[in-house]
Amino acid sequence: MITGKSLIAGNWEEGLGEEFSSYNPVDDKKLNDFKGVNASQINIAVIQATIAYSSFKSLNFDERATFIEDVASEIENLGDELLEVCNEETGLGLPRLKGERGRTCGQLRAFANLIREGSWQQASIDTALLARIPLPKPDIRRVLQPLGPVAVFSASNFPLAFSTLGGDTASALAAGNPVIVKGHPSHPATSELCAKAIEKAIEKNNLSKGIFSLLQGGSPSVSSNLVQHPNVEAVGFTGSTHVGRILFNLAASRPKPIPVYAEMGSTNPLFVLPNAIGNRGRDIAKGLAGSVTLGTGQFCTKPGLVFIVKSENSETFKDALVTSINDIQTGNLLNQGVKSGLNKKLKENAARKEVATLAGGSINEGTVFSIQGKDFLKYPELEDEIFGPVVLVVECEDMEELMGVAKQLNGHLTGTIHSDNDKESIALKEILEDKVGRIIYNGFPTGVEVCSSMHHGGPYPSSTSVLATSVGIAAIKRFCKVTCYQNAPQEHLPEALKNENPRGIVRLLNGKYSTERL
Amino acid sequence: MITGKSLIAGNWEEGLGEEFSSYNPVDDKKLNDFKGVNASQINIAVIQATIAYSSFKSLNFDERATFIEDVASEIENLGDELLEVCNEETGLGLPRLKGERGRTCGQLRAFANLIREGSWQQASIDTALLARIPLPKPDIRRVLQPLGPVAVFSASNFPLAFSTLGGDTASALAAGNPVIVKGHPSHPATSELCAKAIEKAIEKNNLSKGIFSLLQGGSPSVSSNLVQHPNVEAVGFTGSTHVGRILFNLAASRPKPIPVYAEMGSTNPLFVLPNAIGNRGRDIAKGLAGSVTLGTGQFCTKPGLVFIVKSENSETFKDALVTSINDIQTGNLLNQGVKSGLNKKLKENAARKEVATLAGGSINEGTVFSIQGKDFLKYPELEDEIFGPVVLVVECEDMEELMGVAKQLNGHLTGTIHSDNDKESIALKEILEDKVGRIIYNGFPTGVEVCSSMHHGGPYPSSTSVLATSVGIAAIKRFCKVTCYQNAPQEHLPEALKNENPRGIVRLLNGKYSTERL
Repeated sequence: MITGKSLIAGNWEEGLGEEFSSYNPVDDKKLNDFKGVNASQINIAVIQATIAYSSFKSLNFDERATFIEDVASEIENLGDELLEVCNEETGLGLPRLKGERGRTCGQLRAFANLIREGSWQQASIDTALLARIPLPKPDIRRVLQPLGPVAVFSASNFPLAFSTLGGDTASALAAGNPVIVKGHPSHPATSELCAKAIEKAIEKNNLSKGIFSLLQGGSPSVSSNLVQHPNVEAVGFTGSTHVGRILFNLAASRPKPIPVYAEMGSTNPLFVLPNAIGNRGRDIAKGLAGSVTLGTGQFCTKPGLVFIVKSENSETFKDALVTSINDIQTGNLLNQGVKSGLNKKLKENAARKEVATLAGGSINEGTVFSIQGKDFLKYPELEDEIFGPVVLVVECEDMEELMGVAKQLNGHLTGTIHSDNDKESIALKEILEDKVGRIIYNGFPTGVEVCSSMHHGGPYPSSTSVLATSVGIAAIKRFCKVTCYQNAPQEHLPEALKNENPRGIVRLLNGKYSTERL
Repeated sequence: MITGKSLIAGNWEEGLGEEFSSYNPVDDKKLNDFKGVNASQINIAVIQATIAYSSFKSLNFDERATFIEDVASEIENLGDELLEVCNEETGLGLPRLKGERGRTCGQLRAFANLIREGSWQQASIDTALLARIPLPKPDIRRVLQPLGPVAVFSASNFPLAFSTLGGDTASALAAGNPVIVKGHPSHPATSELCAKAIEKAIEKNNLSKGIFSLLQGGSPSVSSNLVQHPNVEAVGFTGSTHVGRILFNLAASRPKPIPVYAEMGSTNPLFVLPNAIGNRGRDIAKGLAGSVTLGTGQFCTKPGLVFIVKSENSETFKDALVTSINDIQTGNLLNQGVKSGLNKKLKENAARKEVATLAGGSINEGTVFSIQGKDFLKYPELEDEIFGPVVLVVECEDMEELMGVAKQLNGHLTGTIHSDNDKESIALKEILEDKVGRIIYNGFPTGVEVCSSMHHGGPYPSSTSVLATSVGIAAIKRFCKVTCYQNAPQEHLPEALKNENPRGIVRLLNGKYSTERL
């Protein structure tokens, strides 16, 4: 039974703000009614999070890791109901949602392992030199610590892996921060079920209930009130550049500014260089069609721009892309907003005389547009993300024009190079290093590994920080602060900085990595 | 000979903006006339920096380290002239400036060593698992890279160590970024000499001249034009909260926002707990007087607030503090602005009926004010930094009041605990962890070690990022971005990510620290 309520620091409460409803995106039928929270309820959630912070941060590593593993188990314990409710709200299909649930639980467990391992705190110890001339050197130790209450804004396109208990929540909790989630209004029942899972894990571990709240709401005021609450210390956001920037601006203009880690719009340019298009153009086209339509084109890393140099081979490539896209039965779009947004963008492109429609053209199918390189530069908006299974092929006269266009690009999450000549492509790589967060070779950008080396971020407008990732275990650093201790007694130091190092945590010891005790 | 010009990408040019002059703060006599740059000159400096970025970032580690070591040598080659010119402009005295020069060159060489050692790039490699089911795992590698042009705003209080070739410039260059320095108008001749030193090092190493510019200027428009230039990728700033926040706001409201790493105002609360004040109150008072008056109270980490609990011992402590401060001959204040600012603050405090003046009271001597704990909370502005040799003693009725006041504090760079009972002080430590960047035990906050574990930053308003330090080698991370490579050919990878690892750089290899090659 879906209650339509919000979980506010352990209490399921009916919202006192604006009502909204959830819909099945496949048949547009109404599913459930929800009541959004009001300012006073937001305030209670944040105040309770602030109070809970002090006990939550003082848990030891094992206690926090066990709690996070229990969250994963409780998600699994929701069983098929979670997948069915989520499918009703998103139309993403049970196989995909089953996979996404696996990823969600996997990423929670990866953070639990990370906490236990300990090196994420980046402990660093410089020991004292009492005999140093002219002044003794003090004992200095530094470590990453939790921040305080973190606000998380869920994404619509990953209702499990980047929503209520997704990567932002997992990384913020793992670091030791209470979390207040603003649920996405396009899958509120899914959020409610996930909140029930975390509620059970909190009860099982006897933790303070203030460490988690789920605030339902469809009104922008819920978001702005949450970001502006003086006790919120950081924000995680996945969504559009438009909304991400509004939240960023609100956070930057607070009396005490806070960071907004926003993962926003990206069109993920993909370059097929002449040698590669000659050698394996058809295969690349087929793979590209799959990447463009994966998740109905609603992935942050969907390649929406393809750059090629005109030739006979490029004609074959385009034909193969069109054939491949036409062969693919696209899935459902996530909600009415995505449908109308896509429809608008398709119409705008079709109306541009320089843009040709090679395949599709409606919201129910994969679409391939094309444009000449020189015309592409006339319309800066062509670089903006189109959410849906759409790709624009940019046909350049020669490599010089292609490189010139590449230099004009804004920031994206990824850039992809298809090339069979590493020397020829090195200049393009050098351009992309300043344009994207991840460079993929001879592959496709969709499919983001959760591992230590992953970076899911990039220059603005794809994200708000070129140092932060929202996927992969490095995501935990966003929700930390540095604390440094000078000549501190042992019992005042956090575990990772004590002389004893029973876990063998990797630490910088006088500038060298070491697992030794002192 | 001081020319009064700016160094714009290798050319010494007369400024086309507003004139300003430098003064000797000891006798207020005019020293030199300077012409500030105009918007067009700022644009040239940034455009040339952008052009130079691509060759500078591609230097190998040895080349960049050698250049930075040469900068240090060229500073030393300036000989006594630098110290004399700087002393004329700042009145800080030759012994202090000699020490500061040593620190400046030492920190440049520390960054050179860091670059050669290589682990600062935080290289991480996850190798491929081609046989993984259901999908092969790609090879993923990530690393820190330079950003692009960095704007540095010099501090007045460290005319060498935090100015033209100070910590911000050193860390930005070390990461591989071109730097545009906005010189501090209170020591422009010192900046000119330092710029000559870097010019020589650039010539000696045949580097692109666009990697460094010194822009002179006294007008706020120089700063705002520089921060708003679309090619500037990050800002380093040391100075007042007022100016730091203006620059932060400008950077956050750009079409493409950029980070401003601002180290701003801090009053560095110091707590003397009852057991310590009883055991060694006189010694603490004496040390405190030295810390308050060091550098004439113009250090970022000057302890400006002292919290004690009233008792007989606290009276002894106050008496000893007054005696010690009265015994100290304070030095010169840096400029007219500091003098008038200090004078205003002293008058404001003296005019508050709850504030008692225990020692001093004029700008030419050390000053001790006192106030009752309950009255302190009435005036939030008493927590603001007073630049100069001034300390406010806050007398609390009991530990409960002291802890209550501590909980109300804003962000500071440091917090200091004097306690002879580690158990009693642990609750205070827990409060300070959320209020300050560095906690000092039984010592004084002035004197900031340059080492791996140092953190010189703190919650707002002491800085704009709780993850960033402006002192110590971790400062380099501020001027980096993450780039991730998926299935990249060896020759496309930066040195730290190649299979070969001839330097034995410490890298994360499939999640474990390792110096191995692949």
